[in-house]
Amino acid sequence: MKRAINFNAGPAALPMEVLLKAQEEMLDWRGTGMSVMEVSHRSSEYEAMHNESQELFRKLAGMGPEWKILFMTGGASTQFFMVPMNYLFRERKATYIVTGHWGKAAVKEAKRFGSIDVISTENEDGSFTRIPKQEELRIDPTSTYVHMTSNNTIYGSQWQYWPEVGGAPLVCDMSSDIFSRPFPVDKLALIYAGAQKNLGPSGVTLVAIRDDFLYLAQEQSKLPTMLSYRTFSENNSLYNTPPCFSIYILNLTLKWLLYSIGGLENMQKINEEKARILYEAIDSSEGFYRGPVEKESRSQMNVVFRLKTPEMEDAFIKQAKSAGIIGIRGHRSTGGIRFSIYNANLVDNIRKAVEFMEEFRLINR
Amino acid sequence: MKRAINFNAGPAALPMEVLLKAQEEMLDWRGTGMSVMEVSHRSSEYEAMHNESQELFRKLAGMGPEWKILFMTGGASTQFFMVPMNYLFRERKATYIVTGHWGKAAVKEAKRFGSIDVISTENEDGSFTRIPKQEELRIDPTSTYVHMTSNNTIYGSQWQYWPEVGGAPLVCDMSSDIFSRPFPVDKLALIYAGAQKNLGPSGVTLVAIRDDFLYLAQEQSKLPTMLSYRTFSENNSLYNTPPCFSIYILNLTLKWLLYSIGGLENMQKINEEKARILYEAIDSSEGFYRGPVEKESRSQMNVVFRLKTPEMEDAFIKQAKSAGIIGIRGHRSTGGIRFSIYNANLVDNIRKAVEFMEEFRLINR
Repeated sequence: MKRAINFNAGPAALPMEVLLKAQEEMLDWRGTGMSVMEVSHRSSEYEAMHNESQELFRKLAGMGPEWKILFMTGGASTQFFMVPMNYLFRERKATYIVTGHWGKAAVKEAKRFGSIDVISTENEDGSFTRIPKQEELRIDPTSTYVHMTSNNTIYGSQWQYWPEVGGAPLVCDMSSDIFSRPFPVDKLALIYAGAQKNLGPSGVTLVAIRDDFLYLAQEQSKLPTMLSYRTFSENNSLYNTPPCFSIYILNLTLKWLLYSIGGLENMQKINEEKARILYEAIDSSEGFYRGPVEKESRSQMNVVFRLKTPEMEDAFIKQAKSAGIIGIRGHRSTGGIRFSIYNANLVDNIRKAVEFMEEFRLINR
Repeated sequence: MKRAINFNAGPAALPMEVLLKAQEEMLDWRGTGMSVMEVSHRSSEYEAMHNESQELFRKLAGMGPEWKILFMTGGASTQFFMVPMNYLFRERKATYIVTGHWGKAAVKEAKRFGSIDVISTENEDGSFTRIPKQEELRIDPTSTYVHMTSNNTIYGSQWQYWPEVGGAPLVCDMSSDIFSRPFPVDKLALIYAGAQKNLGPSGVTLVAIRDDFLYLAQEQSKLPTMLSYRTFSENNSLYNTPPCFSIYILNLTLKWLLYSIGGLENMQKINEEKARILYEAIDSSEGFYRGPVEKESRSQMNVVFRLKTPEMEDAFIKQAKSAGIIGIRGHRSTGGIRFSIYNANLVDNIRKAVEFMEEFRLINR
């Protein structure tokens, strides 16, 4: 059995120790004589794991008890409408800082509910290649919230500073870089992330809300029960059956991150080293590989670049596959190459990728 | 490693061959060198499994291509509001036949969207112990749809005939008895089911809609994108990342049902035999065990009964646990005992349960 060198953009590679543990416990989880999939979500065994996952999340993030950790479903795309549905009522307005495809998608959903100010770095051709500078952010101080996307999976850009937004609550879609580095919890009011990049498999969406921002949310009675953040908060995400197995893999992944890696500061160092190696291979390629993103906006999670022609990109992808390297075709809307180097992809895999890039370049330059 | 005799009400027991296959493929799914959790949902390997699962579903149900099979999330509780949100606009009305807790919960969500006629078998004390007779169903023929719950997990009742509803489209929550027996597809317009009882683990919700009913649904542009059935239908449930692992376990469970069991008619025979054995143990207990449900409304999935006192029920549950029998405490709203005997619980387990019941009775009568 040969494991792939997996650069998928999400669902993505998981830590080997997580998979081995899940395999080992498949028929008998924690001595229950059942798979975790067969255990009642009302059992003490399940609830202990559920609560432990929230504590692991809080501990890694440095969040106190004033943060509610919710396990939801439907991916970030569901949060795109849930945030405005829960917050934009009685003519409230919000500001969206748009730095890529998913931020744009979030605006589309938000406009159904209220008035939206948009600050966008979209280029004339519809592409995105940079994060705005602080001085570009003129934010209406009456905004109910300000929404940003911390990392742009498709375009390969990432915020390398945390913006000042003038006191408005900051809501952040962290789907593609959550827990890749520490982040300033005090600056945030709500974060959300589909799990399938850095936290586990698809099927569970993490939402963390600070108490004082939760307090501002729409009343539960005015929304469908399952669309109210209050329902999830008041029932500890157990109003109905949660996606138990996805939460279980999340639990194992958070333990790996906390105990095997040693937390977010260590993870950041590893991720910085990984990104450094890959970007250096691009920058030292004498123009053979070209990264479209402004240097100070480059993502440490999704490294995107182009070759001279789409044909050469196809050849690159095909030969990489023969070398066991998969998941590197750029998003269908952009083309090109993308290495998604989320947490579970350690330096070893990056070195293999760079070796392949260098070989390919020497033959094809 | 000793496996539990697992009568959980959901999440519930899975077939052993499903768990063994999932265990075997954990590090290398279908020769990809990845877990199915690590594979892109845009890959040909994933898409083949996704589509195959839909075909298996159609084949088992006897559904033609006019049925769209959707993979959603959020459980049946999410369908409670999605059905009316997608169908009750422009003052349309619907009829709900309420036979238990979950039907009542569905009405609560539906009333947010339109005018609802309710036909209920609720007793004066708030309990439910029967399914209505055909002649009780006076249905407004202008109903946009009629909603029913085929099996009542909490109260242990189940429809043993399919109602005539006067030409209105019939919508059925089949969460707790889907694929336990064949059902008349021609009488139905939309069915939904959380997977975690008969179909797999929690985390995926099955929705099947007939084309002509889908045609009546609200336009996509008028709803949040992720709340429109059309979004899921038009994108083959791949608008965003689906809950891949839950769908994978669904896939394996459907294969077990089709190839190892031999389809729904065989499954029905097995389920009838299981229920017969358990109800016989109740009925021949000289009143020691008492089933509250009307005989012709009894469920073949959730067998509920009472003992003389709550204390004796506690003793029953405790001693059962010592014998390796778990998950039999009745729902917190009803008390009593409940054996949930979904598809994966085969006759062997039922015989063990009945042996225990008989021993307990002889000692405690």
